[in-house]
Amino acid sequence: METMDFTMSINTFWVLIAAVLVFFMQAGFALVEAGFTRAKNTTNILFKNLMDFCIASLGFWALGYGIMFGAGSGFLGEIEFFSNVDHGEALGLPNYAFLFFQLVFAATAATIVSGAMAERTKFSAYLIYSAVITLVIYPISGHWVWGGGWLASIGFHDFAGSTVVHSVGGWLALVGAAILGPRIGKYKNGKTNAIPGQSLVLGTLGVFILWLGWFGFNPGSTVSFADPGLVAHIFMTTNMAAAAGAVATVITTWIRYKKPNLSMTLNGVLAGLVAITAGCDVVSPGGAVIIGAMAGVLVVFSVEFFDKIVKIDDPVGAISVHGVCGAFGTIMVGAFAVDGGLFYGGGFSYIGTQLTGVAAVGAWAIGTGLILFYGLKYILGIRVSRKEEENGLDFYEHGEKAYN
Amino acid sequence: METMDFTMSINTFWVLIAAVLVFFMQAGFALVEAGFTRAKNTTNILFKNLMDFCIASLGFWALGYGIMFGAGSGFLGEIEFFSNVDHGEALGLPNYAFLFFQLVFAATAATIVSGAMAERTKFSAYLIYSAVITLVIYPISGHWVWGGGWLASIGFHDFAGSTVVHSVGGWLALVGAAILGPRIGKYKNGKTNAIPGQSLVLGTLGVFILWLGWFGFNPGSTVSFADPGLVAHIFMTTNMAAAAGAVATVITTWIRYKKPNLSMTLNGVLAGLVAITAGCDVVSPGGAVIIGAMAGVLVVFSVEFFDKIVKIDDPVGAISVHGVCGAFGTIMVGAFAVDGGLFYGGGFSYIGTQLTGVAAVGAWAIGTGLILFYGLKYILGIRVSRKEEENGLDFYEHGEKAYN
Amino acid sequence: METMDFTMSINTFWVLIAAVLVFFMQAGFALVEAGFTRAKNTTNILFKNLMDFCIASLGFWALGYGIMFGAGSGFLGEIEFFSNVDHGEALGLPNYAFLFFQLVFAATAATIVSGAMAERTKFSAYLIYSAVITLVIYPISGHWVWGGGWLASIGFHDFAGSTVVHSVGGWLALVGAAILGPRIGKYKNGKTNAIPGQSLVLGTLGVFILWLGWFGFNPGSTVSFADPGLVAHIFMTTNMAAAAGAVATVITTWIRYKKPNLSMTLNGVLAGLVAITAGCDVVSPGGAVIIGAMAGVLVVFSVEFFDKIVKIDDPVGAISVHGVCGAFGTIMVGAFAVDGGLFYGGGFSYIGTQLTGVAAVGAWAIGTGLILFYGLKYILGIRVSRKEEENGLDFYEHGEKAYN
Repeated sequence: METMDFTMSINTFWVLIAAVLVFFMQAGFALVEAGFTRAKNTTNILFKNLMDFCIASLGFWALGYGIMFGAGSGFLGEIEFFSNVDHGEALGLPNYAFLFFQLVFAATAATIVSGAMAERTKFSAYLIYSAVITLVIYPISGHWVWGGGWLASIGFHDFAGSTVVHSVGGWLALVGAAILGPRIGKYKNGKTNAIPGQSLVLGTLGVFILWLGWFGFNPGSTVSFADPGLVAHIFMTTNMAAAAGAVATVITTWIRYKKPNLSMTLNGVLAGLVAITAGCDVVSPGGAVIIGAMAGVLVVFSVEFFDKIVKIDDPVGAISVHGVCGAFGTIMVGAFAVDGGLFYGGGFSYIGTQLTGVAAVGAWAIGTGLILFYGLKYILGIRVSRKEEENGLDFYEHGEKAYN
Repeated sequence: METMDFTMSINTFWVLIAAVLVFFMQAGFALVEAGFTRAKNTTNILFKNLMDFCIASLGFWALGYGIMFGAGSGFLGEIEFFSNVDHGEALGLPNYAFLFFQLVFAATAATIVSGAMAERTKFSAYLIYSAVITLVIYPISGHWVWGGGWLASIGFHDFAGSTVVHSVGGWLALVGAAILGPRIGKYKNGKTNAIPGQSLVLGTLGVFILWLGWFGFNPGSTVSFADPGLVAHIFMTTNMAAAAGAVATVITTWIRYKKPNLSMTLNGVLAGLVAITAGCDVVSPGGAVIIGAMAGVLVVFSVEFFDKIVKIDDPVGAISVHGVCGAFGTIMVGAFAVDGGLFYGGGFSYIGTQLTGVAAVGAWAIGTGLILFYGLKYILGIRVSRKEEENGLDFYEHGEKAYN
Repeated sequence: METMDFTMSINTFWVLIAAVLVFFMQAGFALVEAGFTRAKNTTNILFKNLMDFCIASLGFWALGYGIMFGAGSGFLGEIEFFSNVDHGEALGLPNYAFLFFQLVFAATAATIVSGAMAERTKFSAYLIYSAVITLVIYPISGHWVWGGGWLASIGFHDFAGSTVVHSVGGWLALVGAAILGPRIGKYKNGKTNAIPGQSLVLGTLGVFILWLGWFGFNPGSTVSFADPGLVAHIFMTTNMAAAAGAVATVITTWIRYKKPNLSMTLNGVLAGLVAITAGCDVVSPGGAVIIGAMAGVLVVFSVEFFDKIVKIDDPVGAISVHGVCGAFGTIMVGAFAVDGGLFYGGGFSYIGTQLTGVAAVGAWAIGTGLILFYGLKYILGIRVSRKEEENGLDFYEHGEKAYN
């Protein structure tokens, strides 16, 4: 028998299994997005979800990891290629274990956008967007928080990525969907029309898979099993926020629409999960219930707000779920953290720090998103032709329908 | 590097990963139930599956856990709220790790019922049922067996819950489906009509996910990895019973219906899994094959019995799979346990104990189920209107069809 | 608290979790095969996928394991029944942990064949094939490589089974599909007709599940967590090869068919995964990208070659993905292994050894496949009637359609 460094073995095992769960979220996103859109664009949306993970895998390995964790100034680390500097060592992990864990997070940020831009975006433009986010946009703001950058220095707390991952994806989705414009038929004569998705089975299965994956996403962000109580705590807060999000959305839709609404409740689950991600380690299960429930209400009004007031067409609600609830949950850490939140006697400074981080990362994502999507629009074009959109992207972009 | 309590880290890691697998069974149940019912009721059945997990999460945390594991008399423990007493400590686990593991089990018991009552139950009534089972019914009988209650004292053996989880769910399903009455068109002029489900793809994927989840359900019930041989043993017995259940059902249906039948065989897999759950730790792999195979035959006749003789309409076969095979498997422990079963020279006393437990828990579930479902029926009503049932619950209860 | 053998606990835990992931690949195969074939044969293909796992579970336990790992000569070990000899001990694992891990691998080899022979094979003949491969064919060639047989002796390297598992399945698929003949309508008047599958949603979800499962398949083949760096390394090479395979296929199809093709790209992912399986432990992530990318190109031309030139009808591309890319990846170990591959100064001898193994196992699989499938053809018949094929196997073989 070989001798074993138990600490390193257990921690590596844990980080890799958590990464596997996060990897599987890709399938969850693919199903949710396919379920919430129309059958004529299903090949296209599945393909985008598959490719953004592949591009993220190659791009984050080649460059993103080095930018995000490279030593250096508060804004941008030293640039390293092909993960040739060992950032796992300081954590007692093999470099590739930490890289793989971070890679699946980067891919999550990337994949959020496809839903908001579904049913009308050129495949080629989407691939370029996907490379830019994993190579550049995500790693730079990620460096600020998780790579020892300036937001880390001022005490900004985003344990597993409500802001670093979800709201970055959400704000890019906002900019992308806004620049792209709504789907044909979404807004006619000042009226907002619902365009129902093809299948709630796909949507529900997708949400269960995402919930499953979140048990890697949040507790895995300990990147260690040295504190079993902390890991167990994060399982509880994560699960409670999701459950409370769902219950709150059911009640909200029941009151507001007279009937409990499943597709909104699926977003309520995700809203709770996204919102608790920042503070899952420092809020109590009771706090998680409150944060999750508030997110479950918020997501209903936010979806309506973007859909009917701002008139940005987001077929899956990604802006509200990932952007709005990600920001909301991050700010709530300043209120509910048991180690200094507002409601635990900590005053307003914690909330102030959280607001700073949310605003800074939001400005970064929106700013780079504007450059990226406007650039793509004027150089390559980002929207398919009217004929293609009406007849479905599957046939024109891929020559292959999803169903026969 | 932090120092690590290896024993606690490994055990907690194991219990939480097992809990994650059991959590994913919720998706399996949702798919099986959606697949075995009609497309017009799909939103409704998915929604029920989602909500019973959410309600179980909140309810078991708030009260169920405290009832089930609270110290005290043999019948009912001290009532504790919000898991404020540490029941993990005695097992060397963080309280929240043990709570989360127990929570996903409670949710499994709850979700079994929705299948038997599918396609005709009011959504609001279902939510109330779901709260009552996780807050009260399941934790009390659970206390008798796993909380140190009277069945534990007399030596009743139900390692992972053939009786504690599955048959409680199955008997509640029986009472619920009986009080609810059959779907319109199921029994006409003394004839029993088959109402085929919408999709065997959903059913099959659901069963694969449930089988996967059972590798958390059964071996995870060790709540420790101190005995790797025992965990591996349970993987084997669990898998062998499932495989043997399927093969036995294939043969039975081939002989009886002239053709091998997939939907029954899917229930055969589940029958084998439910049946081995009680004794997975104390029967040999060979014993598991025999128990699984017998359950695979039994489920065919039990489904026919309830469908054609008793005329209780159970769209997914939950009564037979979880109730009948759960009871059967629990009793078989008394025969096949290598440490004192009948066939290993132990005489009839072990079987007698098992029968006592099965009967007591069955009486409890049926008794409380009668009060619960009759109460709901006369206070709130449990059945949707004829018009709603004929046109589908999705539109009337939720305003949202599952497919577009 | 019990005392714990940490090494054994961690290794067993790892092996069993990896096995669970590999088990879930069964669902992935079922979905891919159902998605790539027609709705009239869906019950049948799902049923075959379910049953081959069940038969493999029983057969590999009863005999296959003993043949594969039994001590003895280089060609065939001592035959042992019901896993009564402990082959885990030498690895520091409980016998049942090692058996269960090996069992899910055997089932993978078995299940590959169903896709190539889909939509026209008799159910009964398929069950017999399935028993023969897990009882005899797979364990014997497996013994040569992993059971200490003659290929192990000469230094043949197949870490996780590009050849032992995948190409054995692929070559049996080749022989089976060839003897069976093409589906009606596939080749008419010298023309090759595409027969589109029913659902790319099923295909895509299946591929995500297979990719997930591969994180058990490849890194789990360490059967130990003593070297966390090695496990993490294998996660990286596995993932990089899959991603590169997909990107290479997208580019290839975009150039060749003018449009990026999703179904081929799904096979590109699998091609990359199959190809890296042999050398995932000894090639660098960069090498994995190259091997994966080459497999992603190769699979396109191989599918075309069998489809249009050789005219063997393989509905899912199993021959190319598992047979051709399995062989290719195994040979590439001789080129890219950092410890003696051709490109690392090792000369041609390593490649020669790899070619020997690929050829020997290929000859074994093809030879036994010819005997098996011709035998079945002349004794029992392997093909359904024309009427049954045209109207769908679901109704005639099973009396049950997949969709209602």
